[in-house]
Amino acid sequence: MSASHEIASSARSASRILSTLSSDIRIEALTILNRLLIEERSSILEENAKDIDAARAAGLSHSLISRLDLSKPGKYEEMAKGVLEVAALQDLVGHCTQKRKLDEGLILRRVLCPIGVILVIFEARPEVIVNITALALKSGNAAILKGGKESKHSFKALSSIVKRALKQAGVPESSIELVESRSDVSGLLKEDDCIDLVIPRGSNALVKDIKDNTKINVMGHADGICHAYFHEDADLAAGLPVILDSKTNYPAACNALESLLIHESRVRDALPVIIKALRSVGVVCKVQKEIISYSGVTDPDVLEALDEDFATEHLSLTISIRSVSSLSSAIEWINAHGSHHTDTILTTSANAATTFQRGVDSASVFANASTRFADGMRFGLGTEVGIATGKIHARGPVGLEGLMTYKWLLDGHGQGVASYGEGVGKVSFKHEIMPVESTDSY
Amino acid sequence: MSASHEIASSARSASRILSTLSSDIRIEALTILNRLLIEERSSILEENAKDIDAARAAGLSHSLISRLDLSKPGKYEEMAKGVLEVAALQDLVGHCTQKRKLDEGLILRRVLCPIGVILVIFEARPEVIVNITALALKSGNAAILKGGKESKHSFKALSSIVKRALKQAGVPESSIELVESRSDVSGLLKEDDCIDLVIPRGSNALVKDIKDNTKINVMGHADGICHAYFHEDADLAAGLPVILDSKTNYPAACNALESLLIHESRVRDALPVIIKALRSVGVVCKVQKEIISYSGVTDPDVLEALDEDFATEHLSLTISIRSVSSLSSAIEWINAHGSHHTDTILTTSANAATTFQRGVDSASVFANASTRFADGMRFGLGTEVGIATGKIHARGPVGLEGLMTYKWLLDGHGQGVASYGEGVGKVSFKHEIMPVESTDSY
Repeated sequence: MSASHEIASSARSASRILSTLSSDIRIEALTILNRLLIEERSSILEENAKDIDAARAAGLSHSLISRLDLSKPGKYEEMAKGVLEVAALQDLVGHCTQKRKLDEGLILRRVLCPIGVILVIFEARPEVIVNITALALKSGNAAILKGGKESKHSFKALSSIVKRALKQAGVPESSIELVESRSDVSGLLKEDDCIDLVIPRGSNALVKDIKDNTKINVMGHADGICHAYFHEDADLAAGLPVILDSKTNYPAACNALESLLIHESRVRDALPVIIKALRSVGVVCKVQKEIISYSGVTDPDVLEALDEDFATEHLSLTISIRSVSSLSSAIEWINAHGSHHTDTILTTSANAATTFQRGVDSASVFANASTRFADGMRFGLGTEVGIATGKIHARGPVGLEGLMTYKWLLDGHGQGVASYGEGVGKVSFKHEIMPVESTDSY
Repeated sequence: MSASHEIASSARSASRILSTLSSDIRIEALTILNRLLIEERSSILEENAKDIDAARAAGLSHSLISRLDLSKPGKYEEMAKGVLEVAALQDLVGHCTQKRKLDEGLILRRVLCPIGVILVIFEARPEVIVNITALALKSGNAAILKGGKESKHSFKALSSIVKRALKQAGVPESSIELVESRSDVSGLLKEDDCIDLVIPRGSNALVKDIKDNTKINVMGHADGICHAYFHEDADLAAGLPVILDSKTNYPAACNALESLLIHESRVRDALPVIIKALRSVGVVCKVQKEIISYSGVTDPDVLEALDEDFATEHLSLTISIRSVSSLSSAIEWINAHGSHHTDTILTTSANAATTFQRGVDSASVFANASTRFADGMRFGLGTEVGIATGKIHARGPVGLEGLMTYKWLLDGHGQGVASYGEGVGKVSFKHEIMPVESTDSY
């Protein structure tokens, strides 16, 4: 039996038990985890320092080292506190979401239940192990975690704390499994009998590679080529701060703005102001050739945009800008060139906002608000497991709900289907929608 | 450009328009479809007769010919009526399901929207084209349909009626595309940019083959190895009719009973009665060797079960029977040997029912009711697109809701994220759950 199969089947067994544990036990495990994280702070930060030293020695980028570093002010505390925040969310396991009377004494309920076993592949941010552990336990799912190799010491330290918390709470230790190498992942991707969902967080290339190599359902967290569309009636005073926040608040994030579309009637009055403001905070503007001179912009640092700029996730202080002739052209452009992540319209018209929100086929479609709001914490969902760019199961920021599936429960008194239908001696279904009461959940 | 790509990209374009059409136009298309089906009854049945003649000439099975035959009493009328029933269901496009106040003047809504383009591969039942057309239009999705080759004349006739209805209602004709050959399907499975979901209805082998050959999400409708578990406290008078209905009402269906588990304490009193009743209606009983003599059953036609019988979807009047030592063994057995489709417990204990419903990891988990109730019509969901045996997105009978995804809409007044958070000059999110009003849907 391969190591991958052992891990996957242990997680599957753990998930069977986990799905039947009471809410209290799962909350207890998270409470203990929070306490152990606080108690073991210094030993975990010591291990974390080893990762940072190794990253420095290897000459890794400043931004990567910054993501690795758990000792930044407030970061460790936020991670520990996040566990309690997830513990305090409404428990969804067994939560009844629909109830129908098929007939007297024949009641159908739809209740939420955990998906089962989830494989999460993520980047070099050590706190993610804690976030995902919290979401998995709260949602009753077992999780197998593979983090970036740059944070291996931090992962091992955090993982041993997680295992201790599980043990103390009486939750199967295999509920959270950690794997370290790429080769483990290839083995796990074949375990479609034991693993129900793969969540890769990272580049399009990673998501594509995983989809090519597994039959397990993949909930991809891929590129964000996010757009803002400046409509003909947009208010410059309200719109400009949205563009600036979307582009500059954290340019390396997937929900940062990459492309600005502007209605052609606003190229002369608004575009020069927007470009000036972006330039003043160091943003490189790559503008469609045809509109540079028309706009009257003379800044020699404004660059001509190439076609590929509009298909690029810059992840830096660079923006691509072009004009469109109408709201519907903006929608078409975004559907064809965006990545279905997050797009926003700047407009003073409620109708234009609705048309945009209805027509743009993205997980998050905003009006007069920064694309950076697309985030589980900002949405109020608690810690997120990722931002899904696919359209199946869960979309956009994925919190607890995205980790649940449901089952149909039917309670009868010995009924068969043969007596229902049309014809002599048959009875019809009632199919009454019933109000859901708290006792309908288990 | 290949034929497959042309079909897929036409469907994608149609889906963009379809998702923005009003509910009235989509209902109008279905109303016209119903009318044309009634008007063109005789010409469609003529084409259907060609398929039946060809099937007879090819010596195909009686059950296949019966499934092909639209002229059976009531079948055609039911198909036509079904279109109006789907038209009358609640429209889910743009339906708001969650609303949160992130801050004053910053309102987040989650609204349902169509998935986009769906590829449905199904068997030789011509009415399925009409059922799925109705569900697709009502849910705002474009659909590409591939039916069994045995019903090609019926498909062509029905497809031309569908196209006429779409045209008359002003709905893009490419909203419903029909493909005829297997080779078209292989091409379409590569169109992951244009197709959002594949729904194969059929054997495990079909579902597996499709999963092996596409990166598109697959919602599989596969085998049903459904179980009944006769608990130690089960009432024989209430339980026996459930077993008989589950096994004999329509043995070829995926929700028919295949394996019966019986608590060891009931092998001597209840099992002989159950076997006698099953034998009297012609059911072949394959019983675990160890319990045949213990049960006192002496019927020479009762066969010894082999291990593989408990992994077999008989789809005929055959049942596999074995004993288990406890409720938890029954749950473990079903999770290990079932197909996560539909399972039922026979018990007089509400606690045992809840434990079973909580522990069994299947789409439908019943207590004291026939497995045959697992069906979109019987559940009251309207026509179903299939019964999903996976756990992602939709589970069990898939009606309109299973064809929807959602998006997040945020309406602001120029807010950026930079001003939210903890620290000097920052404000906190309110994250208030708000009641959803009818005006929140679009």
